Amino acid sequence: MPGALLFSSKLDDPVAWSAALKVAMPELEIRVSPELGPPADIETALVWKAPPGELAALPNLKLITNLGAGVDPILADPTIPSHIPVARLGDEVMAQMMAQFVTMCVLRHYRDLVRYKRQQRNRRWHYELPIASYDCRVGVMGIGLLGGAAARMLSGIGFPVAGWGRSPRSIDGVETYHGREGLAPFLARTDILVCLLPLTRETRHIVGRDVLYGLPRGAKLVNCGRGGTVDEAALLAALRDGQIAEATIDVFEEEPLPPESPFWGMEQVLVLPHIASIAVPEIAARDVVANIRRLRAGQPLLNIVDRARGY
Amino acid sequence: MPGALLFSSKLDDPVAWSAALKVAMPELEIRVSPELGPPADIETALVWKAPPGELAALPNLKLITNLGAGVDPILADPTIPSHIPVARLGDEVMAQMMAQFVTMCVLRHYRDLVRYKRQQRNRRWHYELPIASYDCRVGVMGIGLLGGAAARMLSGIGFPVAGWGRSPRSIDGVETYHGREGLAPFLARTDILVCLLPLTRETRHIVGRDVLYGLPRGAKLVNCGRGGTVDEAALLAALRDGQIAEATIDVFEEEPLPPESPFWGMEQVLVLPHIASIAVPEIAARDVVANIRRLRAGQPLLNIVDRARGY
Repeated sequence: MPGALLFSSKLDDPVAWSAALKVAMPELEIRVSPELGPPADIETALVWKAPPGELAALPNLKLITNLGAGVDPILADPTIPSHIPVARLGDEVMAQMMAQFVTMCVLRHYRDLVRYKRQQRNRRWHYELPIASYDCRVGVMGIGLLGGAAARMLSGIGFPVAGWGRSPRSIDGVETYHGREGLAPFLARTDILVCLLPLTRETRHIVGRDVLYGLPRGAKLVNCGRGGTVDEAALLAALRDGQIAEATIDVFEEEPLPPESPFWGMEQVLVLPHIASIAVPEIAARDVVANIRRLRAGQPLLNIVDRARGY
Repeated sequence: MPGALLFSSKLDDPVAWSAALKVAMPELEIRVSPELGPPADIETALVWKAPPGELAALPNLKLITNLGAGVDPILADPTIPSHIPVARLGDEVMAQMMAQFVTMCVLRHYRDLVRYKRQQRNRRWHYELPIASYDCRVGVMGIGLLGGAAARMLSGIGFPVAGWGRSPRSIDGVETYHGREGLAPFLARTDILVCLLPLTRETRHIVGRDVLYGLPRGAKLVNCGRGGTVDEAALLAALRDGQIAEATIDVFEEEPLPPESPFWGMEQVLVLPHIASIAVPEIAARDVVANIRRLRAGQPLLNIVDRARGY
């Protein structure tokens, strides 16, 4: 039957997604990888890191939707025909989940939980006077849907927040910087740096030695964007040197993080398995279906990735 | 010289407080315990757990200000003359610091950081699908200045929040319950319970077996109020039984927490040394001085504790 949707993800739950898609579009035929049925039936694909070649083998594929905000795995797969539009998920619930997660990470660093966990292991009761949050400056690199939501939430609960992006952007209550020339002043005023950049040719390893040492000594880092945006060797050196006092890392250049990675064993590093935010099926399925309807009606598609820009 | 203020605290910084008080009232004479000078000089006292008998020996003392929101140490000290009014500190910065701290604790429990820390220790990369925050119900016991601020912040960032207090109260975006008859329905809808109650005759050990088992199985507990409001033996049993899955405890019946306490060694318990919120001198000194001026002008004092109510 033509018009089928292929669901292909090792991480996401096909049962929950099928149910949510059926609510939004009861007549939608859904195939779950690797049970594709006749390849010619597949009109749209909803994927997270589909096996190489799987999408290339679908002759009538007209739209690929990425199960998340970061589309770098799709753009990096040479087997995927570049004429097929790629949409990415990104709704208010996903943005709120990311903003909450980043807020948790920033609060942990601001309130020195690393030190207090060490004290607990040593059964040591020792109190340090906390500083007020107006003296803890947060900087968010990448202020699109997710980074913008994180910046707004952090500002809303009382932190002085600045944001940095490739192009000018204005966010209420947030001081914004942009471009290469805006990077140094942005870093110089940042005590906790949050990285929520997409992974593109321009951002690969952008958080390297220069950026890390452009922060005040003892700054802290949160990366919930893409592993490839951080030069992990440079971060490791900066952590060992004390230039970066603590880090929370949810994304890595290689995932799963290999067992031999030194990050696992560093007390001042919280290693997380890429959990910050997801597309919640019952919410995100509405956007997936809205784009299927637009495709069939010949209307402009929503949330389409600019391949040249990379996000 | 009459009209002096006595500063007496082992936790708070006398230099920072003296400087802040001098900004607000340059002519104020400040004595730092134990260097009192002539006892008859002291008109007001700014204290946190002053040594027993210290305040009773001041013949001209007219106002005691507590260096924090919880006045139970003052009310429990039989050497302090009960005719002297007791004021407590509580400003927007203190409330915001508490709300941020509680938000951090709730987010840690909501996003299962205990599990992910254990995985890190085992160098294990394992992902679990998170739930959206609209499916994680937070309940705040004690919705005065601090608890109300925490409830509002949690609601503002996306949690369904309910509050419970001894008397009816209304908070925008928060479902409120009150009194003994409101407790069971409040607990039954609460996945993460936050305790921010003052310690009074009515609230001592209020969070005991009945309250803990009134929560859904596997609920989590955050206590940033007063240690005495929780029956620690009942909490320990509920943690060992799994009725309470995790806890963050910032306040204890005995502080410092003795080294032999089993809480120190429990992986599912975060033990913190009473750090959630403080009065920031540069902010709170304004309220202290405002009350000194009112006292001298014979005007009604602000933030005076109701001794019968206990807070």
